Amino acid sequence: MGDVQARVEAALERFLPSGKIAPQRLHDAMRYAVLGGGKRIRPLLVFAAGEAAAGESVRADPARLEVAGCAVECIHVYSLVHDDLPCMDNDVLRRGKPTCHVEFDEATALLVGDGLQALAFQLLAEHRLADDPAVQLEMLKILAAAVGSRGMAGGQAIDLASVGQALTLPELEHMHIHKTGALIRASVALGARCANALAPEQLAHLDHYANCVGLAFQVVDDVLDQESSTATLGKTAGKDAANNKPTYVSLLGLARAKALAEELRKEAQAALAETGGGARRLAELADFIVLRKF
Amino acid sequence: MGDVQARVEAALERFLPSGKIAPQRLHDAMRYAVLGGGKRIRPLLVFAAGEAAAGESVRADPARLEVAGCAVECIHVYSLVHDDLPCMDNDVLRRGKPTCHVEFDEATALLVGDGLQALAFQLLAEHRLADDPAVQLEMLKILAAAVGSRGMAGGQAIDLASVGQALTLPELEHMHIHKTGALIRASVALGARCANALAPEQLAHLDHYANCVGLAFQVVDDVLDQESSTATLGKTAGKDAANNKPTYVSLLGLARAKALAEELRKEAQAALAETGGGARRLAELADFIVLRKF
Repeated sequence: MGDVQARVEAALERFLPSGKIAPQRLHDAMRYAVLGGGKRIRPLLVFAAGEAAAGESVRADPARLEVAGCAVECIHVYSLVHDDLPCMDNDVLRRGKPTCHVEFDEATALLVGDGLQALAFQLLAEHRLADDPAVQLEMLKILAAAVGSRGMAGGQAIDLASVGQALTLPELEHMHIHKTGALIRASVALGARCANALAPEQLAHLDHYANCVGLAFQVVDDVLDQESSTATLGKTAGKDAANNKPTYVSLLGLARAKALAEELRKEAQAALAETGGGARRLAELADFIVLRKF
Repeated sequence: MGDVQARVEAALERFLPSGKIAPQRLHDAMRYAVLGGGKRIRPLLVFAAGEAAAGESVRADPARLEVAGCAVECIHVYSLVHDDLPCMDNDVLRRGKPTCHVEFDEATALLVGDGLQALAFQLLAEHRLADDPAVQLEMLKILAAAVGSRGMAGGQAIDLASVGQALTLPELEHMHIHKTGALIRASVALGARCANALAPEQLAHLDHYANCVGLAFQVVDDVLDQESSTATLGKTAGKDAANNKPTYVSLLGLARAKALAEELRKEAQAALAETGGGARRLAELADFIVLRKF
């Protein structure tokens, strides 16, 4: 994991425009938001899915996985920067640092998000990611659908509308399937297609894995938001409760939320078993996501 | 022009998620921002470039041009919605209607822009736009580069930094080449690639045309901002002067700004002549852009 994180960090450093290129303040702010922080879970999923899809004997091309991993991380960071804006969650701390609009200004943070979204698509379009360009077009389509109004951006809209509402468990799940789940599914789908050695039914099992892991990620996030300190998390703890937002903890209580995360972890592992092996790192990541402490 | 505008309007209506699909408020807001307004100049450029690139005898496939036209219009509208936000230009009127954040709210307007950017890339990735998928990947790369931090979003950052500054003419041009010019160039490039019958040097002439037309568009915008009423423009007139932003008029005066627009129009027409004919509609559009009254 450390190797992949270091490799992704170096690639992001390379792919992001230098702070010496105009407009400098915007590029400085993009680099500030992206570099030197975060667990890089989505790129880790890209790499792990690439390994799973390459099979036991073949190695997925790490240069391709790097590009896809950086693209999903750019999307993720853009969503964080926009979510932290005053008109959204109005947060001041992210990854242990002042949020982008606090360190720079609101207008710049808005453009940082806009620019990072474009950069993600540019990366997927301009580097060779698949032997067949038609597969690469499919990858672009997967990412675009995952982040748009029927994916991640839509999840954010559902989240906004949920403030102060008493959601049912299926409604909460519906929100997170969009808000967090869509990009996590796309990360696994992109990684798998970089290697391109899986049959459609194996891809479907990986997708089911990604669905479970995406939800588990959010359940654990809600648990940590309740149980951990701001210092440990690197972002404001207890924020959802303070903002009167429904969470798995507010709906189920801590014990049942933890049990749900554990159930989802097992379901994810079972889905991997169906792919017929080679998915060791994806299995490790499911454990990491559920057992993490920050 | 009316035919193409009606066709693009119908296609946008079809490509935008219905207001009945969740999240409904977000989809209503996206439709509000995109539909029923605007001159659709960028889609017109896509269609005209497609005709130019198809040559005298062949007809460019209008279904492809529709997709590319809608993609660039989605990008354009996203940029307007974000530019109108309080942290940017803080404007209340656009295309004769209240701006998106006034009609809905700031958070929704932010997500409208985010969702429209994703939709643009989704359209380009999921519809067949070129016989060769590698050409289609190139189209995605062209659009992504044009709208990112070294294109349109970067132009917006330069614009922000220019408030209250005394720019030179080359600095003003540098800003507009990014802010408006990049997407106009991309529109022509995408339209031409939908037809795919031009040699590289002919594409270069079309690109030079697009550069001139993009700058002319902005010069005329500055003239109209000074000379026209809010009612005619459908957006707040005299805003740049009020915001202490440098414009072609503030830099050159009205007469020299008008002369510059005329010069650029002639240069655009000369570039078209170099392509060897078939670019009648592009020629008409250059006239329309410079001679328009709103």
